[in-house]
Amino acid sequence: MFTIYYAPHTCALATHIALQDAAARYELKRIDFGKTEQQSAAYLTVNPKGRVPTMVTPRGILTETPAMLAFIAQSFPQARLAPLDDPFAFAELQAFNNYLCSTLHVAHAHRMRGYRWADEPASFADMLRKVPKSVAACYDLIETHMLKGPWVMGDAYTIADPYLFTFAQWLEDDGVDPARFPRVIDHRSRMSQRPNVRKAIAEEFA
Amino acid sequence: MFTIYYAPHTCALATHIALQDAAARYELKRIDFGKTEQQSAAYLTVNPKGRVPTMVTPRGILTETPAMLAFIAQSFPQARLAPLDDPFAFAELQAFNNYLCSTLHVAHAHRMRGYRWADEPASFADMLRKVPKSVAACYDLIETHMLKGPWVMGDAYTIADPYLFTFAQWLEDDGVDPARFPRVIDHRSRMSQRPNVRKAIAEEFA
Repeated sequence: MFTIYYAPHTCALATHIALQDAAARYELKRIDFGKTEQQSAAYLTVNPKGRVPTMVTPRGILTETPAMLAFIAQSFPQARLAPLDDPFAFAELQAFNNYLCSTLHVAHAHRMRGYRWADEPASFADMLRKVPKSVAACYDLIETHMLKGPWVMGDAYTIADPYLFTFAQWLEDDGVDPARFPRVIDHRSRMSQRPNVRKAIAEEFA
Repeated sequence: MFTIYYAPHTCALATHIALQDAAARYELKRIDFGKTEQQSAAYLTVNPKGRVPTMVTPRGILTETPAMLAFIAQSFPQARLAPLDDPFAFAELQAFNNYLCSTLHVAHAHRMRGYRWADEPASFADMLRKVPKSVAACYDLIETHMLKGPWVMGDAYTIADPYLFTFAQWLEDDGVDPARFPRVIDHRSRMSQRPNVRKAIAEEFA
């Protein structure tokens, strides 16, 4: 049994979908970003990073989406969510997920979280203006070089699929024209029809 | 046999040290950042991301430091560089390395790579001013909550150690007072005395 601390419209959705895919037992605890609950004393005792998601396991807490996704894949091998017996294929999958967290998510975060890296309103406005370009540059790479198709890593669905899907939902809000990325949009469309994805999204807004 | 494309003073050092720790056979190819060689047509055919490091393996290329480090640990199990048979412990290690790539490295990158996320010189100056604070906030977490000691993950040396060491070398240049982080500095000092670390650094500047 796991507990996932999450907020809607965050990258927590990727871990949530993966738990559905693994048929894992979990409960959700919603953190209210409107009240900055992620920075509350109570939540910081759970996760001193003050971010979501946090995954509470019987062994302790985990954070960082690529790490949690790999943990789910390794803990539920029967779900076949990663190439667990092939270090190179596993590393390619990890590299994909790492790119999402360290480059795509970071580009996106400059739209609303510029205060992490600057202090002046003019800097935030400058960052905001650049998001459509910096996020699109990530999707150029994904569309052309990284998304193998039909799933991210090729024929097999893996933990990279819910992670890409989570970010691809934000394309339009980031000011990126989805028509430029037909393969990403095809992937997003197929993901959005999967029962596990629909169930996870419904749970987050319940 | 692996080939590592690298540049001195980059996070490539972490992978390089791990290859030494694994007693792996490798060759180094230096990329000249002074000539923007990482964006050259020739290099982009190797790694379309235009970044270092790139690890060329007999199966294909790998990128993203946490993925490469885990690949080295899994490919050379006799080197005992990660808890390979314990998914939770492996996830904790991955979470540490993911924090470094997605938060600490990103905070640091705003010192000299602000053009990735903004366009105006005033924004770059604002970002530069904030680096000592944003980088120190990462080390506060590492010092207080993440570095178990004596090695990052506790008693066993792992692939998290060369990665933390690589960033900790940049503390002073990022304007952070190292006296605030005695446990990180003790770790950096012990790492700098390891023969594999000394050999890797010497090779990068040869």
